[in-house]
Amino acid sequence: MAAKRVLVVHGCNLNLLGEREPEIYGRTTLKEINKQIEELASELGLEVRITESNHEGEIISAIQDARKWADAIIINPAGFTTTSVGIRDALKAVDLPAVEVHLSNIHAREEFRRQSIVAPVVVGQICGFGAHSYLLALLALSNHLGAGEKR
Amino acid sequence: MAAKRVLVVHGCNLNLLGEREPEIYGRTTLKEINKQIEELASELGLEVRITESNHEGEIISAIQDARKWADAIIINPAGFTTTSVGIRDALKAVDLPAVEVHLSNIHAREEFRRQSIVAPVVVGQICGFGAHSYLLALLALSNHLGAGEKR
Amino acid sequence: MAAKRVLVVHGCNLNLLGEREPEIYGRTTLKEINKQIEELASELGLEVRITESNHEGEIISAIQDARKWADAIIINPAGFTTTSVGIRDALKAVDLPAVEVHLSNIHAREEFRRQSIVAPVVVGQICGFGAHSYLLALLALSNHLGAGEKR
Amino acid sequence: MAAKRVLVVHGCNLNLLGEREPEIYGRTTLKEINKQIEELASELGLEVRITESNHEGEIISAIQDARKWADAIIINPAGFTTTSVGIRDALKAVDLPAVEVHLSNIHAREEFRRQSIVAPVVVGQICGFGAHSYLLALLALSNHLGAGEKR
Amino acid sequence: MAAKRVLVVHGCNLNLLGEREPEIYGRTTLKEINKQIEELASELGLEVRITESNHEGEIISAIQDARKWADAIIINPAGFTTTSVGIRDALKAVDLPAVEVHLSNIHAREEFRRQSIVAPVVVGQICGFGAHSYLLALLALSNHLGAGEKR
Amino acid sequence: MAAKRVLVVHGCNLNLLGEREPEIYGRTTLKEINKQIEELASELGLEVRITESNHEGEIISAIQDARKWADAIIINPAGFTTTSVGIRDALKAVDLPAVEVHLSNIHAREEFRRQSIVAPVVVGQICGFGAHSYLLALLALSNHLGAGEKR
Amino acid sequence: MAAKRVLVVHGCNLNLLGEREPEIYGRTTLKEINKQIEELASELGLEVRITESNHEGEIISAIQDARKWADAIIINPAGFTTTSVGIRDALKAVDLPAVEVHLSNIHAREEFRRQSIVAPVVVGQICGFGAHSYLLALLALSNHLGAGEKR
Amino acid sequence: MAAKRVLVVHGCNLNLLGEREPEIYGRTTLKEINKQIEELASELGLEVRITESNHEGEIISAIQDARKWADAIIINPAGFTTTSVGIRDALKAVDLPAVEVHLSNIHAREEFRRQSIVAPVVVGQICGFGAHSYLLALLALSNHLGAGEKR
Amino acid sequence: MAAKRVLVVHGCNLNLLGEREPEIYGRTTLKEINKQIEELASELGLEVRITESNHEGEIISAIQDARKWADAIIINPAGFTTTSVGIRDALKAVDLPAVEVHLSNIHAREEFRRQSIVAPVVVGQICGFGAHSYLLALLALSNHLGAGEKR
Amino acid sequence: MAAKRVLVVHGCNLNLLGEREPEIYGRTTLKEINKQIEELASELGLEVRITESNHEGEIISAIQDARKWADAIIINPAGFTTTSVGIRDALKAVDLPAVEVHLSNIHAREEFRRQSIVAPVVVGQICGFGAHSYLLALLALSNHLGAGEKR
Amino acid sequence: MAAKRVLVVHGCNLNLLGEREPEIYGRTTLKEINKQIEELASELGLEVRITESNHEGEIISAIQDARKWADAIIINPAGFTTTSVGIRDALKAVDLPAVEVHLSNIHAREEFRRQSIVAPVVVGQICGFGAHSYLLALLALSNHLGAGEKR
Amino acid sequence: MAAKRVLVVHGCNLNLLGEREPEIYGRTTLKEINKQIEELASELGLEVRITESNHEGEIISAIQDARKWADAIIINPAGFTTTSVGIRDALKAVDLPAVEVHLSNIHAREEFRRQSIVAPVVVGQICGFGAHSYLLALLALSNHLGAGEKR
Repeated sequence: MAAKRVLVVHGCNLNLLGEREPEIYGRTTLKEINKQIEELASELGLEVRITESNHEGEIISAIQDARKWADAIIINPAGFTTTSVGIRDALKAVDLPAVEVHLSNIHAREEFRRQSIVAPVVVGQICGFGAHSYLLALLALSNHLGAGEKR
Repeated sequence: MAAKRVLVVHGCNLNLLGEREPEIYGRTTLKEINKQIEELASELGLEVRITESNHEGEIISAIQDARKWADAIIINPAGFTTTSVGIRDALKAVDLPAVEVHLSNIHAREEFRRQSIVAPVVVGQICGFGAHSYLLALLALSNHLGAGEKR
Repeated sequence: MAAKRVLVVHGCNLNLLGEREPEIYGRTTLKEINKQIEELASELGLEVRITESNHEGEIISAIQDARKWADAIIINPAGFTTTSVGIRDALKAVDLPAVEVHLSNIHAREEFRRQSIVAPVVVGQICGFGAHSYLLALLALSNHLGAGEKR
Repeated sequence: MAAKRVLVVHGCNLNLLGEREPEIYGRTTLKEINKQIEELASELGLEVRITESNHEGEIISAIQDARKWADAIIINPAGFTTTSVGIRDALKAVDLPAVEVHLSNIHAREEFRRQSIVAPVVVGQICGFGAHSYLLALLALSNHLGAGEKR
Repeated sequence: MAAKRVLVVHGCNLNLLGEREPEIYGRTTLKEINKQIEELASELGLEVRITESNHEGEIISAIQDARKWADAIIINPAGFTTTSVGIRDALKAVDLPAVEVHLSNIHAREEFRRQSIVAPVVVGQICGFGAHSYLLALLALSNHLGAGEKR
Repeated sequence: MAAKRVLVVHGCNLNLLGEREPEIYGRTTLKEINKQIEELASELGLEVRITESNHEGEIISAIQDARKWADAIIINPAGFTTTSVGIRDALKAVDLPAVEVHLSNIHAREEFRRQSIVAPVVVGQICGFGAHSYLLALLALSNHLGAGEKR
Repeated sequence: MAAKRVLVVHGCNLNLLGEREPEIYGRTTLKEINKQIEELASELGLEVRITESNHEGEIISAIQDARKWADAIIINPAGFTTTSVGIRDALKAVDLPAVEVHLSNIHAREEFRRQSIVAPVVVGQICGFGAHSYLLALLALSNHLGAGEKR
Repeated sequence: MAAKRVLVVHGCNLNLLGEREPEIYGRTTLKEINKQIEELASELGLEVRITESNHEGEIISAIQDARKWADAIIINPAGFTTTSVGIRDALKAVDLPAVEVHLSNIHAREEFRRQSIVAPVVVGQICGFGAHSYLLALLALSNHLGAGEKR
Repeated sequence: MAAKRVLVVHGCNLNLLGEREPEIYGRTTLKEINKQIEELASELGLEVRITESNHEGEIISAIQDARKWADAIIINPAGFTTTSVGIRDALKAVDLPAVEVHLSNIHAREEFRRQSIVAPVVVGQICGFGAHSYLLALLALSNHLGAGEKR
Repeated sequence: MAAKRVLVVHGCNLNLLGEREPEIYGRTTLKEINKQIEELASELGLEVRITESNHEGEIISAIQDARKWADAIIINPAGFTTTSVGIRDALKAVDLPAVEVHLSNIHAREEFRRQSIVAPVVVGQICGFGAHSYLLALLALSNHLGAGEKR
Repeated sequence: MAAKRVLVVHGCNLNLLGEREPEIYGRTTLKEINKQIEELASELGLEVRITESNHEGEIISAIQDARKWADAIIINPAGFTTTSVGIRDALKAVDLPAVEVHLSNIHAREEFRRQSIVAPVVVGQICGFGAHSYLLALLALSNHLGAGEKR
Repeated sequence: MAAKRVLVVHGCNLNLLGEREPEIYGRTTLKEINKQIEELASELGLEVRITESNHEGEIISAIQDARKWADAIIINPAGFTTTSVGIRDALKAVDLPAVEVHLSNIHAREEFRRQSIVAPVVVGQICGFGAHSYLLALLALSNHLGAGEKR
């Protein structure tokens, strides 16, 4: 059976990881996180393609394109989490299982960060574990893709 | 008299039309809609230029450019409907008669889709008639442009 | 095939049209609007019956009666738009395709006019085009009735 | 001792019962409900007069008249439940024990149906049991009228 | 100079005055109030026509008709005070100076009675003085009609 | 046919009935109410088991156990009415027809008592009739259980 | 019988009357208003003492002192209308009949001006009639003081 | 190095898992979930103790006791998620790293389930992956306990 | 005269005092606080019985039992402060003078801790003085019980 | 050691104590309260200076001056409790331990009295015990000043 | 040309500057700030008069007086910023260009400090630059006064 | 010492300045504003780089890049002011002193423009002075950069 393919999307400002507010986001750089994602994906027999953008429109387009090649999506919408109806609609439109990821525990931060507009259209949400949140999402998807019928 | 010119703007995710959630948005593709728009425009003696983007910024720029050539605007802001102050400001700035269009009846959907931030700066809003919403908007504008002084 | 029949309902105060606040509602009288509606209906092969009342109860009854003879409804609920659960329930009960119409762009007016309680049970809403709003509604219904299966 | 007399009021759209949205309101017609009400009233030694209207004003007047002949009121305000200060004031003014009745469980429906403006001036509220709600209200009133001093 | 003519409108349930909740509304009947209004009007050289209804629609129509004969309006919207967009629109449409009157001090009662939807379109509001509120309104209008240019 | 079995649940503080705030809750003790419930159940051919607790957890467990033996539930959640997601989830989980009962008319009391979190998962709600509320609930269930298919 | 005595209180900024925003407050100066008040009081056999201050504390003290000599109060709280719990408490404490007056129709102005915190402790409110509002208040009090037992 | 010890807490109604609303919570029983938890813990070199209760008080006590023996906590507060200040305070008091788990995606369900009062005091939240949510939490904790200094 | 008896209730998590978040709750243990309470009570000629529980139900029952032996109640509802209608109802039902106590100044903490649902049914509230809050409450009650008629 | 000095501040309308609404505020006059405060202060070895004003500005100045001579503040902000940012800022600025006092239980009164804007900057709040509230505050401060390091 | 004259108003508690919460307001005293203001004014050819008060009433009066001599106003309303309708009305009444100034960035502080009731009637707002905010305001006014026609 | 460098960011639609709604934004074009900024910067010994975009993503990237070369930022977020969490996060991440600028007084405009999501992470906000707002921001930054330790 062919490897399942997963799109990983990093929202705005995540390119600064490791540099920006380490007391909230940790010291690991995005490059290191991507390496960890790729290694675990490889272990799990998954193929990942990673994209990162400060542009909401590029993220929408990346999600749309995913319907042509991917089996699932991992997305950290970052600064677009609470307002982007466009990203939500794109996720709904491509109809692939998606997992929402946040480095920090958004529910423990400012009021305006807590209500994700994306959350109602994803399978689940994982937040608060730093870079490890992405790896947990990969594990969650790996289980979800292989066990769709069991649940 | 020269033909009146109309800018038609499709907001984010509308490029997926016909494929995405047909129970909400219908099965007609954007290409087919554009063809219908062009045919009706031609009948009405209007000239249309159609633009489509997932980028809020490109839509803002397209609206701004319209002040140099267009007489009116038809816009389906889609995922930008409720949050884009930028699109609202652009519409206000170019000061052309505009009609807001939605394929679905946004007032019958999720709470967060109902309050358009764009609506207060357009002539009127038409929603709920699928692709036909655009054609009604063309008819509305045709009448509006020709009958400014009568109303 | 027999002509489709459409009930047109004018809510309270619309009998004053042409006389009342012309800067908001235009100068066309209700009589003139009705004439325009009848002419376009005739062109479209539709049969219309028009009713107008300041009484919420009469409007509810008119809608109820429509289930015995009409194929669709056009309604401008006017002053009943935001509070009449009774009109909403009547529209829901008769289960005919309905289009909500407003002369002015209610989304650009006072806060208390914006959230229509009727909107969630109609096919679509058209507002802001003065008397022309009714004609657009007729066109919308004509298309809707003839093209149910296509959408 | 003379039979106690009860006014039964059906609010707007209830004349459509049995036909309208049977999955919410059941298949029994208003005529059948009235028959059941009359039969049970007769068993309980109560005299009922039943009125039904789509007009808020007629319901207000019927309640006002009740102060001249009735000992109690059963009212299903239907579409007037959440907004009619007039019906509330009429109930308060005649100062007769009243029971509010709803066919459906209004607390399980749309948000805007839940907060009855009438409820604070009645003895109690019964909702969710279809036509049987009226019969339970009759039983409640029968007990209330005969047992005023016991409670 | 011909006598100025004033329409006096009593909203729903006011026909019960003197009987209903006297601790709130006082013991004077509507008939007695009307007599007082007529006597004072006569003294002031005003002509009054008084109408009273439990039907919102009849009140709207009475206000509409006033544009053909009256110079001013006194209205106690009673139970329609907080919800009737229709009465507000009618008052706005006829564009006659109007005074809003309440027997009780609505600002000292239940929360839901305080925000009149009619108030923003009248000249002023007088409330809390029982039947005398109407007489004060007559005096206010008499002054207003005679002194338009002075203020 | 075997007698239908009904679980009756009294929430916190109801053990004090007859002693506590009689102007709100009446003077009948819980023991007397239970006797009335048992007598009417017997007449209706129903079997009841009554439980009463100040512990939310015990009520949840009692409801869960009911799925093994009962055909329906009558519950007065009392102080747990507005906050207990746990009781709501238990009622939803056991999927038995349930009726919510309140001695007082909760809609006429403090704001914080009005919005029952349990109401959306029960068949209906009866409130305001003192101890008689329970008997009406028994009658409602008796009818509901015998007439499921008819409604 | 001794003349009844009335304290008249002008809140902050009213000293600028006739000069400040005449399109809202009219062109009559405070001095002229006071003259009109004194003349009408004299006609009505009332004695008035007038105070005016930009200091909330001085107004509170003036109201407190009134309990030693006055029979009633007329107050235009102006800028203190919506926030001064102190003035409300003073009015409540002295327990004299008071009338709240506003030159403009506060219910037709900015949202933050509409909910008077003083209104719930006065007999009634008169607003919208310019300087004439004070005279109407005098008439209202004159009637109220002479007719306490009649209402 | 001794094995790290983890307390796993199941909130109310979770004992019904596999039986209750399988379309939301899946078909796996709590027993099976516990077995999976224990197996994975064993693999990860963690020791788990599992507790389950319908009583908020028992859960509070279990968390308090954990401060004497455990290194971390996994908690699915279920029906106590949005209201239990007591559980939140207990978690805060014992000051152990905790992970909040939900079987379903609470952010995609009813409004009242979305705002966890517990979330602000845990390390992170994982929801939407059915029984697998618990396993992901174990992995998250395993990483967190071993890698505190790295993040 | 027999000594007055006072029930002292410690709500959930207070058993951890001295250990839990000392920067908020201080370093005194519950045992030490109880000793201070008993010593002061003895000085004041009061008899105290102290109860402490993590179970809302046990607290409700303790309050109910108090009606048989106690003259007053001191309660620190802790985590139950803002949500427990059950504790409020119990306090209301036993109708004994009660004082609400908090170690910390709840009005200076998170928003969700500020609005006590218990406060409206107690004599008064004392908060912010650490363990000393209980002693002040004893003094308050001692004065209140001895001086009922004086105030 | 020199006696600690305490500023006692009485807000607006408290000069009327004993006269004003005794059912809420008791019958003790401010003079009597001040005597009790002075006597207890003397017993506790504290020196008090008492100030009272209807002027927010005077209260702010009194608090500011306190930084030059006082060790602590007791304040009953009365009518300034919920709105005076100025008093709050003054208390914050002088950085002396302060206790907020209310005669009545503000949490059991009108909604607008409950949220003190001053509370977040004081040590604690005592309310509901009439004049005794001040004495309890003195005791609280006495303990606080002597035991700063112990808590 | 005569020098333009500017009134500078310091609201309550600003007299404590340099002493009060330096981490928020800086260490410069009001005297030093005034000196800086005067020096810069002199450079700009402006004449300033500076007033400072803890009394809202004095500030209102100072603003009113300014209409007789000043060309512009700089105001730091401090603790009166969010509630003083009186100061707002005074600014509106004198109709001079005004600039609102804050030492701290009020938009980064507590929620209740953010919505200035004064802001809608001034030319602009400058906040967050400590004492320098005043100097920027002077520069802004200097430009505004000299360049009225250019903008 | 090397010149300090400042990034100036113009948000969406500002390219239309001078053309768009001059009654709100003035008649100066963006080009002219930029010239003024550069001239003043030169005078102040600052080096500026100016960027302008309709794309939120480009602005985020420009801010991110600034951390490599700039000492401070001036930003007019325009249409992104109230919703862009991404711009806020970028400003927070680069940790450079920033000043928020608006041409118009946003606090005097529509409700939805008033609450800047960017404001809490900048040094200060200047609004309402047209193009001059930028120059004031330059002056503010010049002072801030040179005087960090003094404040």
